[in-house]
Amino acid sequence: MVRVQHAQLMSFVSQCLRTAGAADSIAEAMATSLVEGDLLGFRTHGVRRLPYNVKQLQSRAMKGQGEVQVLRRRSAIETWDAEGLSGLYVAPKAVRTAIRMARAAGTGTVIVKRCEHVASLAAYLQAATDAGMVISMIAATPAQSSVAPFGGVQRVFSPNPYGFAAPTSGEPLVLDMSFSITAAGKVRQAYDRKEQLPWPAIIAKNGEATADPAEYIERDGAILPLGGTDLGYKGYGLCLMSEILTLGLSNYGRLQGAFDGEMNTLYVHVADPEAFGTRQDFLTVTDDLLRRCRESAPAIPKAAVRIPGERALELKRTQLREGVLLDELTWPRLQHLAQKLNVPLPAATLVELTD
Amino acid sequence: MVRVQHAQLMSFVSQCLRTAGAADSIAEAMATSLVEGDLLGFRTHGVRRLPYNVKQLQSRAMKGQGEVQVLRRRSAIETWDAEGLSGLYVAPKAVRTAIRMARAAGTGTVIVKRCEHVASLAAYLQAATDAGMVISMIAATPAQSSVAPFGGVQRVFSPNPYGFAAPTSGEPLVLDMSFSITAAGKVRQAYDRKEQLPWPAIIAKNGEATADPAEYIERDGAILPLGGTDLGYKGYGLCLMSEILTLGLSNYGRLQGAFDGEMNTLYVHVADPEAFGTRQDFLTVTDDLLRRCRESAPAIPKAAVRIPGERALELKRTQLREGVLLDELTWPRLQHLAQKLNVPLPAATLVELTD
Repeated sequence: MVRVQHAQLMSFVSQCLRTAGAADSIAEAMATSLVEGDLLGFRTHGVRRLPYNVKQLQSRAMKGQGEVQVLRRRSAIETWDAEGLSGLYVAPKAVRTAIRMARAAGTGTVIVKRCEHVASLAAYLQAATDAGMVISMIAATPAQSSVAPFGGVQRVFSPNPYGFAAPTSGEPLVLDMSFSITAAGKVRQAYDRKEQLPWPAIIAKNGEATADPAEYIERDGAILPLGGTDLGYKGYGLCLMSEILTLGLSNYGRLQGAFDGEMNTLYVHVADPEAFGTRQDFLTVTDDLLRRCRESAPAIPKAAVRIPGERALELKRTQLREGVLLDELTWPRLQHLAQKLNVPLPAATLVELTD
Repeated sequence: MVRVQHAQLMSFVSQCLRTAGAADSIAEAMATSLVEGDLLGFRTHGVRRLPYNVKQLQSRAMKGQGEVQVLRRRSAIETWDAEGLSGLYVAPKAVRTAIRMARAAGTGTVIVKRCEHVASLAAYLQAATDAGMVISMIAATPAQSSVAPFGGVQRVFSPNPYGFAAPTSGEPLVLDMSFSITAAGKVRQAYDRKEQLPWPAIIAKNGEATADPAEYIERDGAILPLGGTDLGYKGYGLCLMSEILTLGLSNYGRLQGAFDGEMNTLYVHVADPEAFGTRQDFLTVTDDLLRRCRESAPAIPKAAVRIPGERALELKRTQLREGVLLDELTWPRLQHLAQKLNVPLPAATLVELTD
């Protein structure tokens, strides 16, 4: 692993994106979103995805200039067509718009179709909690299918991430999860390493649940929904909910977006606690709830119960201070990109890690 | 089991509630909500709960007259204090208000604190889908704790139900689930029958997951969140989300409502597909999604993939036609109540069932 100072990494990423054709403000926002993924520890969804974004910009599959089209507008909602702009640029913009609507109407919802891949949802949530808001986000990928419905063996849903965050008196609660039993990336990783998955996460064509990643990679099995073979109707229900709120409300589903590659449809919903009650009383109740969780006796001695996002936010603070860690799958890609685009590589310090 | 004609059951339930002190319109709404639970097959949350409601009305713990107080109002939200009115009456009212707001603002959200027990969330969802709306509902119970946070052994959350429904070209999708790995009622039932649970759903005080219901009933264990000991951080995150949207936004949490018995806090959120796009395009996308699920090859031969709510809605049609089934835990309670309140019992036919 290497460590790169945050400001230098930001400027490198942003310069690469500008060189590839992104307007200044778009490049800046995209760099912020990607680097935020690394800051929070979502390394598969951070600057490791810079080469993909550069390639999409260069091929004009991703728009580097222009603006979203607002298709519909009411006091509490907007529907956007991003027309191939980057989700890294569009998502924070959607969050800002949802916050603005929530301040007036109580809640604000923005649905965005056809934005290029958003990377990590967690990267966008703190903008809302910093403004005192509660936020929910969902991303679906209409051209991807990897998760089976409960009781079925075929791939129907994309492994739609769900993000939720709420302000507290201290650090915000930040949740980023999916409604499937594992991520497709983890199945690929186990397969590459010739390992079994830690639990039966795949449903094979013959209807058997299995921990063998080859059933997914080689033999067209599907990922099980959260809850697996017993309680998978819950994860299945949540997958349906997530695709109806994204693909359904945006009027752009798997038929319409079948050839959209990694393009996402986003659901951004913000609620203003000050509209429903008072900020102080909201914080009192939320703080008390989190305190009850933290103070619960742990299942494993000394392994205290954690609040979602706690570790990620701690890692962010450390990395802002000491520099951002980039692993052996990421740094060589940035080196290669620097050479290709003729953009000076930031200074990096080698780090020996035992993780 | 016995079978009672729907209209007769409605009139009996409503008369009992009036006799116990509920105003006509309140008794009517309460009866509709309770009977709807039975129609959809949620027998633990149907008229079996009539004696509880009568008792609460008689003791004045539940208000039988009066109206909710609207504490806050913006174009897309309202916050209500039900001041002890029945959730059976208040929930459908909140759904109607949310629908009205959604028609104008795009979405409508109503948060209700201090309503008496709502019974089955599924009973309220179809009013929204009949109006062409997408609906999400959550109920929390501030005085109840039974579900542990991930990594902990203490009871923190109530087993908060989550409801979601969306219209389609045919029957609506209707989901009613919880974010815990099992319901407290199922643990009680297994304990009473001296059976083990079908999977390790309880976390014992020593931190071990177990299928033994006695660990919960006798030794103060806790129910695990959805996802269990492996993926329970997901169910834990969803429990936190559900209590922040209810208790947090209503400014009324576990400290404030510690002695509220079965009183609920509700979150009702409605989105109007016609605000975000067109009704026809919404239905096209949603129908296509459900078709992909239905047409998935089944994991078990001939056991076709089902859409959430499919069986419940079929049961409702049958029971509206042939009469409502009441089981051996419910019918004797109604007989007893009829005698106590001096309300004529509806005619019942004995049914032999093999279920």
